[in-house]
Amino acid sequence: VSERYDAGSLRCLLEEVRSGACELDDALARLRTLPFAELLDARVDHHRTLRTGVPEVVYGERKSRAQIEAIARELHARQGLALATRVQPGDGAALERALEGAVYEPRSRVLRWGGLARSGARVAVVCAGTSDLPVAEEAAQTLEAFGHEAVCFSDVGVAGLHRLVAALDELASVRVAIVVAGMEGALASVLGGLVSSPVIAVPTSVGYGAAFEGLAALLAMLNACAPGIGVVNIDNGFGAAALAHKIVSAAAPGRS
Amino acid sequence: VSERYDAGSLRCLLEEVRSGACELDDALARLRTLPFAELLDARVDHHRTLRTGVPEVVYGERKSRAQIEAIARELHARQGLALATRVQPGDGAALERALEGAVYEPRSRVLRWGGLARSGARVAVVCAGTSDLPVAEEAAQTLEAFGHEAVCFSDVGVAGLHRLVAALDELASVRVAIVVAGMEGALASVLGGLVSSPVIAVPTSVGYGAAFEGLAALLAMLNACAPGIGVVNIDNGFGAAALAHKIVSAAAPGRS
Amino acid sequence: VSERYDAGSLRCLLEEVRSGACELDDALARLRTLPFAELLDARVDHHRTLRTGVPEVVYGERKSRAQIEAIARELHARQGLALATRVQPGDGAALERALEGAVYEPRSRVLRWGGLARSGARVAVVCAGTSDLPVAEEAAQTLEAFGHEAVCFSDVGVAGLHRLVAALDELASVRVAIVVAGMEGALASVLGGLVSSPVIAVPTSVGYGAAFEGLAALLAMLNACAPGIGVVNIDNGFGAAALAHKIVSAAAPGRS
Amino acid sequence: VSERYDAGSLRCLLEEVRSGACELDDALARLRTLPFAELLDARVDHHRTLRTGVPEVVYGERKSRAQIEAIARELHARQGLALATRVQPGDGAALERALEGAVYEPRSRVLRWGGLARSGARVAVVCAGTSDLPVAEEAAQTLEAFGHEAVCFSDVGVAGLHRLVAALDELASVRVAIVVAGMEGALASVLGGLVSSPVIAVPTSVGYGAAFEGLAALLAMLNACAPGIGVVNIDNGFGAAALAHKIVSAAAPGRS
Amino acid sequence: VSERYDAGSLRCLLEEVRSGACELDDALARLRTLPFAELLDARVDHHRTLRTGVPEVVYGERKSRAQIEAIARELHARQGLALATRVQPGDGAALERALEGAVYEPRSRVLRWGGLARSGARVAVVCAGTSDLPVAEEAAQTLEAFGHEAVCFSDVGVAGLHRLVAALDELASVRVAIVVAGMEGALASVLGGLVSSPVIAVPTSVGYGAAFEGLAALLAMLNACAPGIGVVNIDNGFGAAALAHKIVSAAAPGRS
Amino acid sequence: VSERYDAGSLRCLLEEVRSGACELDDALARLRTLPFAELLDARVDHHRTLRTGVPEVVYGERKSRAQIEAIARELHARQGLALATRVQPGDGAALERALEGAVYEPRSRVLRWGGLARSGARVAVVCAGTSDLPVAEEAAQTLEAFGHEAVCFSDVGVAGLHRLVAALDELASVRVAIVVAGMEGALASVLGGLVSSPVIAVPTSVGYGAAFEGLAALLAMLNACAPGIGVVNIDNGFGAAALAHKIVSAAAPGRS
Amino acid sequence: VSERYDAGSLRCLLEEVRSGACELDDALARLRTLPFAELLDARVDHHRTLRTGVPEVVYGERKSRAQIEAIARELHARQGLALATRVQPGDGAALERALEGAVYEPRSRVLRWGGLARSGARVAVVCAGTSDLPVAEEAAQTLEAFGHEAVCFSDVGVAGLHRLVAALDELASVRVAIVVAGMEGALASVLGGLVSSPVIAVPTSVGYGAAFEGLAALLAMLNACAPGIGVVNIDNGFGAAALAHKIVSAAAPGRS
Amino acid sequence: VSERYDAGSLRCLLEEVRSGACELDDALARLRTLPFAELLDARVDHHRTLRTGVPEVVYGERKSRAQIEAIARELHARQGLALATRVQPGDGAALERALEGAVYEPRSRVLRWGGLARSGARVAVVCAGTSDLPVAEEAAQTLEAFGHEAVCFSDVGVAGLHRLVAALDELASVRVAIVVAGMEGALASVLGGLVSSPVIAVPTSVGYGAAFEGLAALLAMLNACAPGIGVVNIDNGFGAAALAHKIVSAAAPGRS
Repeated sequence: VSERYDAGSLRCLLEEVRSGACELDDALARLRTLPFAELLDARVDHHRTLRTGVPEVVYGERKSRAQIEAIARELHARQGLALATRVQPGDGAALERALEGAVYEPRSRVLRWGGLARSGARVAVVCAGTSDLPVAEEAAQTLEAFGHEAVCFSDVGVAGLHRLVAALDELASVRVAIVVAGMEGALASVLGGLVSSPVIAVPTSVGYGAAFEGLAALLAMLNACAPGIGVVNIDNGFGAAALAHKIVSAAAPGRS
Repeated sequence: VSERYDAGSLRCLLEEVRSGACELDDALARLRTLPFAELLDARVDHHRTLRTGVPEVVYGERKSRAQIEAIARELHARQGLALATRVQPGDGAALERALEGAVYEPRSRVLRWGGLARSGARVAVVCAGTSDLPVAEEAAQTLEAFGHEAVCFSDVGVAGLHRLVAALDELASVRVAIVVAGMEGALASVLGGLVSSPVIAVPTSVGYGAAFEGLAALLAMLNACAPGIGVVNIDNGFGAAALAHKIVSAAAPGRS
Repeated sequence: VSERYDAGSLRCLLEEVRSGACELDDALARLRTLPFAELLDARVDHHRTLRTGVPEVVYGERKSRAQIEAIARELHARQGLALATRVQPGDGAALERALEGAVYEPRSRVLRWGGLARSGARVAVVCAGTSDLPVAEEAAQTLEAFGHEAVCFSDVGVAGLHRLVAALDELASVRVAIVVAGMEGALASVLGGLVSSPVIAVPTSVGYGAAFEGLAALLAMLNACAPGIGVVNIDNGFGAAALAHKIVSAAAPGRS
Repeated sequence: VSERYDAGSLRCLLEEVRSGACELDDALARLRTLPFAELLDARVDHHRTLRTGVPEVVYGERKSRAQIEAIARELHARQGLALATRVQPGDGAALERALEGAVYEPRSRVLRWGGLARSGARVAVVCAGTSDLPVAEEAAQTLEAFGHEAVCFSDVGVAGLHRLVAALDELASVRVAIVVAGMEGALASVLGGLVSSPVIAVPTSVGYGAAFEGLAALLAMLNACAPGIGVVNIDNGFGAAALAHKIVSAAAPGRS
Repeated sequence: VSERYDAGSLRCLLEEVRSGACELDDALARLRTLPFAELLDARVDHHRTLRTGVPEVVYGERKSRAQIEAIARELHARQGLALATRVQPGDGAALERALEGAVYEPRSRVLRWGGLARSGARVAVVCAGTSDLPVAEEAAQTLEAFGHEAVCFSDVGVAGLHRLVAALDELASVRVAIVVAGMEGALASVLGGLVSSPVIAVPTSVGYGAAFEGLAALLAMLNACAPGIGVVNIDNGFGAAALAHKIVSAAAPGRS
Repeated sequence: VSERYDAGSLRCLLEEVRSGACELDDALARLRTLPFAELLDARVDHHRTLRTGVPEVVYGERKSRAQIEAIARELHARQGLALATRVQPGDGAALERALEGAVYEPRSRVLRWGGLARSGARVAVVCAGTSDLPVAEEAAQTLEAFGHEAVCFSDVGVAGLHRLVAALDELASVRVAIVVAGMEGALASVLGGLVSSPVIAVPTSVGYGAAFEGLAALLAMLNACAPGIGVVNIDNGFGAAALAHKIVSAAAPGRS
Repeated sequence: VSERYDAGSLRCLLEEVRSGACELDDALARLRTLPFAELLDARVDHHRTLRTGVPEVVYGERKSRAQIEAIARELHARQGLALATRVQPGDGAALERALEGAVYEPRSRVLRWGGLARSGARVAVVCAGTSDLPVAEEAAQTLEAFGHEAVCFSDVGVAGLHRLVAALDELASVRVAIVVAGMEGALASVLGGLVSSPVIAVPTSVGYGAAFEGLAALLAMLNACAPGIGVVNIDNGFGAAALAHKIVSAAAPGRS
Repeated sequence: VSERYDAGSLRCLLEEVRSGACELDDALARLRTLPFAELLDARVDHHRTLRTGVPEVVYGERKSRAQIEAIARELHARQGLALATRVQPGDGAALERALEGAVYEPRSRVLRWGGLARSGARVAVVCAGTSDLPVAEEAAQTLEAFGHEAVCFSDVGVAGLHRLVAALDELASVRVAIVVAGMEGALASVLGGLVSSPVIAVPTSVGYGAAFEGLAALLAMLNACAPGIGVVNIDNGFGAAALAHKIVSAAAPGRS
């Protein structure tokens, strides 16, 4: 906010120390009061992406088309990927035209422009019912944008268990399995008892009456009797993909 | 409360009508104000058992040993069965000694003395985990006391799905399937998608933290994606057995 | 997903065994890795209807008119009945014209085309208030489509108890009684204490303020002091009918 | 807190006005700043009993035996009645001995010493199940202590409706009907549709699992479809009696 | 449903008894099985108004204009009063024109046509804030239609306590005080500690965020530290008036 | 964790810079990777008390007597005050003996040893009922320990409003008013409309049934219609005092 | 309501006392029954602003443009400030034209006309995310209107902690810090552990699914581990500013 | 249940096919009805550990000492590790003596006997407050038993942010970070914004009043603004460790 924060202030201080223009004790005192933004700049926050391993994305809800476009251009320039979630269809179509190479997928309301380098990792997105598909798609689009292969299984709810069993071989080859389910959310437990990969459970707000906007599925997933399941927020397909991305990346030393 | 309620009042009235001692209009008026308990006695409520098809049982919670014994003796005399649920172990052992032929089962806290005629019907009691067993036992004991065969399957939770699948043949032969499960209650959905018999789901208060004393399982069961499931109160094994009894009995014209 | 799943692979394997082209141990190993979808096909899932006894229906919510029509045609061809619930009025009228013989009932938003063979069973649908009628109608339409006779009693709420009492004789003749009630949901308890048939309770979201969208009725029904009541999800008339169907069918050996 | 509050200050001021020692404007100013506790003393709060029509009672919870005894002596001296609710059995027995004429009733945990003049009014206390009796007793004891006749009906739950119907004549003669019920609380609705007197509903914490400590009964009573029902706090038998007392008293001009 | 229910069947039976055409035992048996609707007709339910003391009203929500008009005409003819609540403004204006003498009040959405005889009783409607006025108006309109004088006090919330204190004298003259308040609902407690009349508390859904659609006010009112308060459903001005009506009527022997 | 964290490392680096032993760019790089705990040590966290203005206290719950004693000795030595809350009576008495000059107050379960310099500020602690006193006492003890004068008003609940009004003059002189109330928590609203000082509201878990362990009071306080009220956690007397302390201190430049 | 309330009645009484036309005892009695509105007028409520220190504002929700304009004119004339919150954009623009000098800010929906004298105090408004800005703006606008300087920090959520750390110096200079955050509301805890000023936390309804309209943030803020935080209602930016205003004013003797 | 299930039945069938003793069509039919437990035995469920990658553990709650010992012996023999959680201290000490080499840790209530091969992976367990330590310990003990190195950081809550910042370098080296926090659970968000490893959040039931037994922390963690966080059940340290184990193992092809 003041000039004290400019990039060279630390170098200046050190130069004064070297030249003797600044006493050691003074230097120490100034260092203590010097805003350490600069230090943090390189160490803690040079790029949030570097720090957390998750690229920055645009949360489109309550943002204007112009705002989304501006941020998207900046992110695309900086990290080679602009991903915007929850973009309204009207805005999505317009942005697709405005940003060359961008693709908008209306069901998931995801706009994607560019992408990270391919990781070669496969992540399953297992979806209980057709009504859960928009959330599953948000997860899948995010995974693809982050460089992973999303392997989708839809309509494999527990009421038709054999479809799930039939997919087991293929599920055995993925690194992470994302389960997207509303209603009673039982698919997370069932899948968690069948695969060795970590399972990320996304409750959806699908269901009527006593589903209470996803609360039933959320509680069920948190109480899943199969160990090794992590739960994210209701309808949060992006959050599940971000966690899968971190899991996959953490295992690949060259990427983190 | 007054003498007007004594058993013969209706007969008296009719006699007066026959003898002409009472005018028709007066008789009609008196009939209107005559408490119809007497009528109801024979017609609506001679025996509650006759009306609802469910024998009367003793709910042992908050009742003294002496109270339970007194009611048990009366019920046993009247309907050939005294069944008491939620009986404390100390009381149960003492009552077993006091009531000849009575059997107390400590895990389910059920005291059973006598029983209804055997119906020949088989009802499955499917139990997700060992912690759910006391509730499952309460259901099984009640079923047996009511004259049905309880076929029990324990520890067939969804995290070990193959055990459930292995039991499918046997499950195909029952008239009703009772599912007892805590935690995420997913077993109800899974079973509901595999069998043709009606499914009665009993959520249990088993589970920690976000199970919220059975709320998670209750909501899951109400939202089960498989159709044909009826839910009863948390930990209410007796209630599930009573509903199963009504289902089985309703189908047997000679019994209802 | 691969050709290994094609229908004849199991037969092929057996032929190779017979011809000696395949060693026993190899055959065993291949059987272990052979997707058992084929086995399951005949045994567990040839028809979901066969397995669970409940015909497949179309849940119309969030589905386009074209989607509903396509699925309806397929179901009608396969099982002689296409039943779609929660169909918007505009779509319902159009589908009625498109599917010859289909009937759309706007109040319940149910589209019905064809039906199962008549079972001769009677199921009561007892409705507390006029606002609960759409849910009751959904239950009644489903029952009729599944081949049962729905006997409807409307506006028999507990505040006018005599109407319920007057219907008792007729209620005594049904196989199952479905109770549809919002607000305080007391009708389930009252009816449960009067009839011998199993009672299925459907809480509705009718009511204001502290009804909390059906929560009050739901809790009341789960806590009903009369034994023998199974509860389904809020506003879920279809679910109640499906459970009634299973109860009725389970008792009729020739049907299950 | 200062001497300005002593009882004679207002009289002093008026004397100064009369003697001319105080100018009118000064008197007005002093009146404005004079704490009006004195005025309120006679007008608004001479006796809280006079103001609200409800005698002061001792809430025994978390109070020591000595504290209860001291307050009881004071209340008994002042208003001819000392009523203490929620008194532990040990304390109750001791206080019965210490306070001559006091009576302790262990089931309701009410200690009663003295009483108000008889009003001649009858108030019904209708109790759904035996487990609800302690709460019903608290209401009945309070009514009797306040001078009214408590007419008790127990075990008239809706699952045995005929018992309620049989009591209708007697219920027609009361001024207020208090309904005490746990579980699904349906009795309030049923009674509200049968009697012309105002109905006060007391939900109790009786019930298991999904009763959620009285929440189910509370919501049911608030949503009762029969008009003319006022609900009080869970297990609050005293509160119901206090409201009944106000209703009865409000109608008797000589008492209020 | 059958001819046995027609009005004369009971008289016929009695005539047969008188003429000797029917034996006493047969008559008793037939009486037992005779549907007692006829008895109930005169005794329990000739008019619901007679039984409960509350006239029938039209709940306008989800009803068409034509339906409201039809029921209103019937009620007006039968009981001299047609009162409809929750009538949409468009329908209200049209019905005002269609039903001569009817008056529609848009703020409360109440349509009123005719009224009961004046009782002379005064009932206070105390309203915390201007946003609570529609609910308070519904209560006031209902009271006036039922023959009582509604004395309204608005904007006397606890944040401006002096306004409430200033109204105490007038509040002392009413038979019942209805308190209408949203947000924290504190007005019920405060008023309950100041007046001797019974207090009926109506929580409203007014308030933001943590008011949770009236839950905060509802809980506050149920927990009011001042005794003698009955609570009705959220936003239920009509219910409060109905309870006040019962309280006032119960005290007037000539009316009940 | 490594030796790099020792206290002199920053000084060493600067000395190397001065002596030329370390190049500027290297120094910058090392500064970036140097853990800045040292910097933070003097600047951000030398004493948490300095940073937040609130002395460190011991939360006694789940801590052994020995643990409390050890931390108390350290805090007393460092900041001249050891304050421990939620200390069990047995431990409190023993610690009083062990720590010379320490005082334990059983009702509030607060142990206090030493204290901060007197601020001269007065803070009111207004308590609705006697059951709320332990929480009020915790607040008062904390205030006194932090150097402020706690002015206590007890039993001034809204059901006896005149007591509150009588205290207004004295309340006008305090810097902050803490309101402690359970049940319906209305006192916060009432007081907030009467005084000009900021009001801190502490809901307590006092109340039965629908108080839901303090939830009713909490919601009421958050929805208080009078502006200028801040709410703290249920039963958190210490938290209220800490906020009052911050408010008082923030206004006294010499203290912060 | 009667003539007894007119402004001169108290003076008349005093004149009668002075002239001897009224006996002292009569005067005392009349004073006791005299409505003390007049006294209260000067003492307790001459201006609500004087009493509580918070100017009156217009809550625009559910108010018509004409109503807002009328109240605004009155408040502006009386207290030099008319502040209206939650004013719809259409109304805001029109009122800006109608009231000369008024300014409407669409994002916060605040209309401001005039203002109090500058206090010189600085209050921080720290905002976690861009979606929380409307609430933060409501707080800032209110602060400015009340004469304080609002120092705004936006987008300093805990996921980018360094931005918060960088602002610490500036935050050290404010008198109060208002934290506005939705989702998990962690910013309140973090800030509370870093600054010495009192912290006011405003949970916002921003967030999806399990944020439950602000409940998650509300609970988090109430449970903040850092002491010295007061919480206001969800989305209540005005309430936070009002509390900050009271805190600042309470410390400035010349203002209160 | 019958002999058909014995291990060799499939081989027998194949032999019959080979020898021609069984026709192809018969073999196909028999395969269809042959319980596929045998197939599943090798393929789907030979060892649950193999399938899900998580060794079987003993959940000690509600199990007798003898039961725990028996299962422990079996697990230790089969998988070289017997881990029992929630073992009561008395049982733990006894089992430590009975099982040679077993170690019981009273704070976490974990009994550990043997262990899996070391993986070399490091997993952080970051604990907000000392009260959260038992849950953190359960996670750490589980991790160590599963062969990973648990790196523990305690008392690094967000109110003392610098402690967290100081640990960042060390946190950068772990594969997964488990965050254990009660109260407002903010630590998950803060850490999630600072590290690149996946974060598993465990809400604890620590906190008072409005923490609602862990609900506050649970909701906060689900709403964490930092992406890449998976949440497990309240107090479920074991569940977090199991998920971490799956994440670590999934990345190590040789282990899964």
